[in-house]
Amino acid sequence: MTSTASPFTLARRAERMNPSIIREILKVTEQPGIVSLAGGLPSADTFPVQAVRDATEKVLREAPREALQYAASEGFAPLREWVAAHLAQQHGMRVDASQVLITNGSQQGLDLAAKVLIDAGSRVLVETPTYLGALQAFAPYEPQIDSLESDHEGPLPEALAAAAVVGSDSARFAYLLPNFQNPTGHVYTEARREALVNAARAAGLPLVEDNPYGDLWYDAPPPAPLATRWPEGVLYLGSFSKVLAPGLRLGYVVAPPGLCPKLLQAKQAADLHTAIFNQRVVYEVIRNGLLETHVPTIRARYKLQRDAMDAALHKHLAGLAQWQRPVGGMFFWLALPAGLDAMALLPKAVEAGMAFVPGEPFFAAAPRRNTLRLSFVTVAADKIEVGIAALARVLRQAEAAL
Amino acid sequence: MTSTASPFTLARRAERMNPSIIREILKVTEQPGIVSLAGGLPSADTFPVQAVRDATEKVLREAPREALQYAASEGFAPLREWVAAHLAQQHGMRVDASQVLITNGSQQGLDLAAKVLIDAGSRVLVETPTYLGALQAFAPYEPQIDSLESDHEGPLPEALAAAAVVGSDSARFAYLLPNFQNPTGHVYTEARREALVNAARAAGLPLVEDNPYGDLWYDAPPPAPLATRWPEGVLYLGSFSKVLAPGLRLGYVVAPPGLCPKLLQAKQAADLHTAIFNQRVVYEVIRNGLLETHVPTIRARYKLQRDAMDAALHKHLAGLAQWQRPVGGMFFWLALPAGLDAMALLPKAVEAGMAFVPGEPFFAAAPRRNTLRLSFVTVAADKIEVGIAALARVLRQAEAAL
Repeated sequence: MTSTASPFTLARRAERMNPSIIREILKVTEQPGIVSLAGGLPSADTFPVQAVRDATEKVLREAPREALQYAASEGFAPLREWVAAHLAQQHGMRVDASQVLITNGSQQGLDLAAKVLIDAGSRVLVETPTYLGALQAFAPYEPQIDSLESDHEGPLPEALAAAAVVGSDSARFAYLLPNFQNPTGHVYTEARREALVNAARAAGLPLVEDNPYGDLWYDAPPPAPLATRWPEGVLYLGSFSKVLAPGLRLGYVVAPPGLCPKLLQAKQAADLHTAIFNQRVVYEVIRNGLLETHVPTIRARYKLQRDAMDAALHKHLAGLAQWQRPVGGMFFWLALPAGLDAMALLPKAVEAGMAFVPGEPFFAAAPRRNTLRLSFVTVAADKIEVGIAALARVLRQAEAAL
Repeated sequence: MTSTASPFTLARRAERMNPSIIREILKVTEQPGIVSLAGGLPSADTFPVQAVRDATEKVLREAPREALQYAASEGFAPLREWVAAHLAQQHGMRVDASQVLITNGSQQGLDLAAKVLIDAGSRVLVETPTYLGALQAFAPYEPQIDSLESDHEGPLPEALAAAAVVGSDSARFAYLLPNFQNPTGHVYTEARREALVNAARAAGLPLVEDNPYGDLWYDAPPPAPLATRWPEGVLYLGSFSKVLAPGLRLGYVVAPPGLCPKLLQAKQAADLHTAIFNQRVVYEVIRNGLLETHVPTIRARYKLQRDAMDAALHKHLAGLAQWQRPVGGMFFWLALPAGLDAMALLPKAVEAGMAFVPGEPFFAAAPRRNTLRLSFVTVAADKIEVGIAALARVLRQAEAAL
């Protein structure tokens, strides 16, 4: 009786889980000779390798047994204190270290928040478009995702107010990225932040504020986080991936005190704790203020890259596409002429020697197919222009065929 | 309008999530001067610190950009290949590297398996008693946990057969720990493994086989894993925590090919990927065969400790408690005289200068309150005897009062 049939039955939620379209796109586009503006990675040139080297050496010399042993689910206490102090100093947030949970990158923060807050059928509000990884993190908990009408300053407060409670059904939270969102690069103005928080508070609608890019501003720092305006109503997510290095997988959740125990239990159930070795190393790297000198060097580098892409876009795509020069983050967001489908154009672009990410997967519903995302942080300025010029040729041809 | 009321609504599953009782116990018992046999940690004396130091140095010298950048959700390819080769050589499993998913310790493997396989109300079968961390990992997915009648060789095959399908309701899987289970230390015999796999296959019941302790055998290696006997019906979990170091949080899932895509999507949604820095470091540590010389030193050390505890138990607790000398793992499991409640005795034991973990939390239902777990791996042999002697005084007093 040797059957090779699988006896496994998948949970219903597995139907909601899908391969990342972007991941599939990157497989096709990351070929030698292609100028890929499709990636979402920070530039490896910004990683503070020597500081990480020194820190690992110190941690393994001074506390090897503690750094390699099981540890607390909340995270390494000095790192939690650093996060609380940093958020207070940098962003004016009033946070106690006891509210900080260290996670495996902020992606895990999204998973834990969803695990604790979403029931099957719960409504969750998101921007239009929004971060694809959040849609993936939420999907296994089977929410109904409602897209909020949004402009270049973020979601419209009246859209948020209208969607917060529908009949007797209160949305569980709105997921918001006020700073240099992936994919659009948009930043919320001060006035929009106030209006959104006021609308959310009036409706009793909690907010999940995701801020991986907040430190990557190129002209002026962004306005204060939503969490400073309504501490008891905002769950805040931060990350070391963009200012230090993503390969260490370190992020954090800052939650109102009442939510902390359940988030902690969810973390414990998920993987006991975040690697204490990594936490101690990162704490050593940053404890004496490295970020204060390091982050400005990232800003300076990315600002030049942004300006190079903006110049190339003006030179080659003026009249062919619309964009706003982002004031932070890693991405330009382009709107092509109506009728063009970025997904359909991608193979042609790859043939022409460049790659982008179509905007479609970032929409929870009703995708605007004439949009695409370009990263300006990993490709050198001269190559950026080569890539944009190739894109222009493809668009011109496609537009002519419309 | 400043309300400090929390606007957050918890998901229904949050009710199932609870603080770890053991964690709470450890907080009370980990005091200076207490001989704690309560811990579940491996001995930090076994961590190969110099090898980790050399490996981090090498990784940061040879591939710093790759080690600190985002990476594939499946895990580091050479490490996945190492795992597949190791399982083939060590355990006779036929595994392709494409079936290996690297996780943040095997706790994350439990979470991902549950996420992909459990719907609210799904029945999941477990041993009596079973690993508490698995009950915690499963709980957020709201299963109905059914405890299988078990003896010192594992669950009874007829109990498994009877529980596999009840009416038209098929259990989603049975969670089994064939080697030196936490908490009992029991190992399944060859005959029991065969009988269990035959019963599971006949019933079409998938198995989740958890093997964190398999390499820690002290007399003879355990029989081959269940996965060798029914590859398409067993999801297998392994870990580097007990043979290398838990603070790096590295484990792995080996799944039948059909399950791999959904597990991968669940991993991606959960935290994108396991820290690539840690994966590269561990691969450097083990690639040239370190475990072949290192694991025998752990075995030799733990075997002496086990013998010391066994001797102390014979000297002080003969007639007062019942136990089997474990042939692997980290724990003794004691049955006290009927009528004694280990949870109630714990404060008295701490007062007397020692600590244990009551057996109660390891039972999914109908706890046997007269049971307790003792770890023999972290406390020196002379201290073990001091602790056991103190336990004996407490038990003698409690028995006299029955």
